[in-house]
Amino acid sequence: MKNLKHFILPTFALILVLIGATNVQAQGVSSETIAVLTDVQKYYRAIHIMAMLLVGFGFLMVFVRGYGRSALTATFLLVSISIPLYYLIGSYGIFGHKGSDIDKMILAEFAAASLLITAGAVLGRLKMQQYLILGLLFIPFYMFNEWIMLDEGFGLVGKGQFVDTGGSIVIHAFGALFGLGVAISMTTKNEYNTPIEADATSDRFSMLGSMMLWVFWPSFCAALVLPEEVVMTGINVILALSGATLATAFASLKLRGKIDAADIANASLAGGVAIGSVCNTASPAEAMIIGVAAGALSTFGFAVIQAYLQKGLKLVDTCGVSNLHGIPGIFGGLVALIVVTGINYTAQLAGIGLTIVIAIAAGLITGKILHLFGHRKEPYLDAEEFSVED
Amino acid sequence: MKNLKHFILPTFALILVLIGATNVQAQGVSSETIAVLTDVQKYYRAIHIMAMLLVGFGFLMVFVRGYGRSALTATFLLVSISIPLYYLIGSYGIFGHKGSDIDKMILAEFAAASLLITAGAVLGRLKMQQYLILGLLFIPFYMFNEWIMLDEGFGLVGKGQFVDTGGSIVIHAFGALFGLGVAISMTTKNEYNTPIEADATSDRFSMLGSMMLWVFWPSFCAALVLPEEVVMTGINVILALSGATLATAFASLKLRGKIDAADIANASLAGGVAIGSVCNTASPAEAMIIGVAAGALSTFGFAVIQAYLQKGLKLVDTCGVSNLHGIPGIFGGLVALIVVTGINYTAQLAGIGLTIVIAIAAGLITGKILHLFGHRKEPYLDAEEFSVED
Amino acid sequence: MKNLKHFILPTFALILVLIGATNVQAQGVSSETIAVLTDVQKYYRAIHIMAMLLVGFGFLMVFVRGYGRSALTATFLLVSISIPLYYLIGSYGIFGHKGSDIDKMILAEFAAASLLITAGAVLGRLKMQQYLILGLLFIPFYMFNEWIMLDEGFGLVGKGQFVDTGGSIVIHAFGALFGLGVAISMTTKNEYNTPIEADATSDRFSMLGSMMLWVFWPSFCAALVLPEEVVMTGINVILALSGATLATAFASLKLRGKIDAADIANASLAGGVAIGSVCNTASPAEAMIIGVAAGALSTFGFAVIQAYLQKGLKLVDTCGVSNLHGIPGIFGGLVALIVVTGINYTAQLAGIGLTIVIAIAAGLITGKILHLFGHRKEPYLDAEEFSVED
Repeated sequence: MKNLKHFILPTFALILVLIGATNVQAQGVSSETIAVLTDVQKYYRAIHIMAMLLVGFGFLMVFVRGYGRSALTATFLLVSISIPLYYLIGSYGIFGHKGSDIDKMILAEFAAASLLITAGAVLGRLKMQQYLILGLLFIPFYMFNEWIMLDEGFGLVGKGQFVDTGGSIVIHAFGALFGLGVAISMTTKNEYNTPIEADATSDRFSMLGSMMLWVFWPSFCAALVLPEEVVMTGINVILALSGATLATAFASLKLRGKIDAADIANASLAGGVAIGSVCNTASPAEAMIIGVAAGALSTFGFAVIQAYLQKGLKLVDTCGVSNLHGIPGIFGGLVALIVVTGINYTAQLAGIGLTIVIAIAAGLITGKILHLFGHRKEPYLDAEEFSVED
Repeated sequence: MKNLKHFILPTFALILVLIGATNVQAQGVSSETIAVLTDVQKYYRAIHIMAMLLVGFGFLMVFVRGYGRSALTATFLLVSISIPLYYLIGSYGIFGHKGSDIDKMILAEFAAASLLITAGAVLGRLKMQQYLILGLLFIPFYMFNEWIMLDEGFGLVGKGQFVDTGGSIVIHAFGALFGLGVAISMTTKNEYNTPIEADATSDRFSMLGSMMLWVFWPSFCAALVLPEEVVMTGINVILALSGATLATAFASLKLRGKIDAADIANASLAGGVAIGSVCNTASPAEAMIIGVAAGALSTFGFAVIQAYLQKGLKLVDTCGVSNLHGIPGIFGGLVALIVVTGINYTAQLAGIGLTIVIAIAAGLITGKILHLFGHRKEPYLDAEEFSVED
Repeated sequence: MKNLKHFILPTFALILVLIGATNVQAQGVSSETIAVLTDVQKYYRAIHIMAMLLVGFGFLMVFVRGYGRSALTATFLLVSISIPLYYLIGSYGIFGHKGSDIDKMILAEFAAASLLITAGAVLGRLKMQQYLILGLLFIPFYMFNEWIMLDEGFGLVGKGQFVDTGGSIVIHAFGALFGLGVAISMTTKNEYNTPIEADATSDRFSMLGSMMLWVFWPSFCAALVLPEEVVMTGINVILALSGATLATAFASLKLRGKIDAADIANASLAGGVAIGSVCNTASPAEAMIIGVAAGALSTFGFAVIQAYLQKGLKLVDTCGVSNLHGIPGIFGGLVALIVVTGINYTAQLAGIGLTIVIAIAAGLITGKILHLFGHRKEPYLDAEEFSVED
């Protein structure tokens, strides 16, 4: 009995401990709960990207005045073929492990974005079935390149060595150069001589698409960053886009004498393209400067380079994707060499160079295959494939 | 004093326990905090649905070329009458308990979606005041049916027995059949003989609406699912929509010889309609197959069935809601019988059958009442009710 | 050794405590994690506001039929000049501390919204460079007023005394009255005599902008409220907008004989303007009533007051911002006197009065400066500044 009292207080303490532990278990929040909430937050970014893919890219391409229904239908088809295909191949892990379900969906959307960029280069010159074939051929090539850049495919680029968070290289430059490859393989003389015209309504629709891209671009770049990086990534993208928009208006006026609506709709977005690689590492000031440079470069591309490019390579790049995604994309990948401290120069340059080579080669091959399926009689017109009353 | 030392260690332990408990309270995160964050996440899905209601449904209906301002104004009015009305009735708990504030708002948005589907069947043939009367009559009927299906109203369908997460039956089929009922009661000979025409601009606006619906449909289906189901529900919906979009393009081309822009704008969405019932239980492969089937069915409805239906019942279904929401909705409800393991066949079939009966009956009555308020002189034209310069 | 057993149980207890503590640390979720998630949720509201700024305000202003490309370009430029400028000045803390990064971005977006309202008053009459100068001059004035109202600038309004959560006064009334000031300083006789015309397409685009504003307005008002207030704030805003939309349709029909599409596109939003000050304190019923009153007031402004105002002050308010943002904004600020219990009457009235004075004075000065940069030859036409094919 004497010893008993020695046990009272300790036992009391033990009970308290157990009550405390129970309370913590009952009241506390598990890290799985947080993981679910974090995944749902990623889901919202995935929806934002979906708005970019359909309404953004889709309407940006409506600037071709007689081809609006076709451009939007092509967008629908390209998204609907590429996302399930990527998701399927990704589930088999053929080109590396793609992460959780929501990560896989976001990566599939990135692939769809790149495909839409490619399609922009040959918009108006493919039949609807050919857009689908383009999608079927593009996705494996895209995943092959992505695997080399981000998943140590063939051990060419070390894991985590290639800096390209928002896809300046892997998404934008790849899509643009793939598209150039297809355009080189496919452009006919008839197509080369047919003017591409816009009007007041097609321009307004195109600017709608542009604005949808601008608005949701922060979520594109922040889609897969860590939760604590989302806000600053988003702010960087907004500043880069602002810089590009201002630079575009100035450059368009200076280079052309008057402002061109297509410059505004397109080159304003070059800030988003170029900030991609360093969107989560740049400072706000750097982001703004990158944006200004990208907007000026892209406008110079539309106003000056495009004519030489088309004449030199005898191709038509319908939407000017080389100016919006090609040049600013490569610029963005190179900027990482300056902005990111401790970057692996070799890996970064190898990644950029390899992507350029793979994209152009794959595009040339794909264009040859598409060529086998024939050509439209008249480019850039709905009526050939759509029942049209007007 | 001798006993004192027996107290030192226990007391020390106690202090530690208390410090620990305090720390947990100070640093730990309560489940209320998580509940708030989860509600805010639901709020974002509610906003996505609002984008579908106004921009999505609204612009989808702009395909009628001379009736755009009216279609958009009608959308504004239908949303603005139905959501407060549902919220008010829901707050009194007349048709069962509707859950938390955000749940009630989302359910109100579901009701508004169903009402907009109904309105699509008679679009262009009601005066603005009649759209409001339609809304006032529709919401109680809708809540009555919802109460029977989901809240054991009259004990007809057991609690949780009827599988319809994303509303294939309760929202889509109900709205479509209610609309058919109204159209049967109301369509005049003049209206029957007036062609409904689209043009390049109205088609592009319509495809804008379609894309807004496509983009945010995942949030519609995932609006009220558990947090851990949001991502997979969203992915299923995207796959179903992709499948429907591909099937629609094929079917439209095969059935008509040329692609019809209205098929693309509408039937592509049938995947979203049909996946509704099983959006959180289907596998990705099942979702894709359901989508393909729904897209094909819906296009067949637009291209073939609609003409027979309109002739047989002497009605006009302006937007073809029977093809987009009716057939694919019922299909979606039936698919649950195959996809969901352990489903209660009786409850599911009773739910589908009862909804069909209630919707048509309520629609017929509502049409008779609307008929008392007269008819427009000329259908499908802004100028009768709007001050128009052009 | 005898004392040893007195240590066994206490030691065991201690070990348990330590294990418990470790468990809690390992499994528990820190408040920093929650702070990150909460910031990401704010980020989504920031993106919603961005959709309002570009697509919403931008397309609402496309109603001027020959000036669509210009209105959208001006929107791009105004957003791209104001957000970085606010963010920069805010980072230096010149006009008070602006909070965390995401808070600063949201406040910058509020400033951009106010600037776009101002621009609406003189839309079509500034050259592109003048929109930029307007932005450069506007932001410091706006921040000066914001600092007085919300950050005790000059000690004129006590901290937290001025009730204006969603910015009825600080954002909407300020922007509208600043715009009136600019219009008074700048409107030429030629501009005064040039009619502002809409057509079916420009009206539909304008209603698109309106719907985008409507849809995302809840996130505008809830952008900076506490997490637990987000849902109710959002619901209040939806109810206020619904009320305003219904009242607008009635009022437009009564006051004009026919409905005016511009009334619907604009005055429907007055509910969002007026609920701003009390969006997180009003009851749902109060929100609905405020919306109805604001919609009626605003439509009365468009249909009746505007003509007198323009004649009396010899100005043109292109978008009628005084009717949409001016009157309903001041109404919203005054309504707080009734709705908010324990409100400081003096502070609220001082805040409203000071904002009115500062806005008009700053607008007059800014207009005089803009006047120095000349006038367009022809107002409301793209062709003067844009390369236009049609």
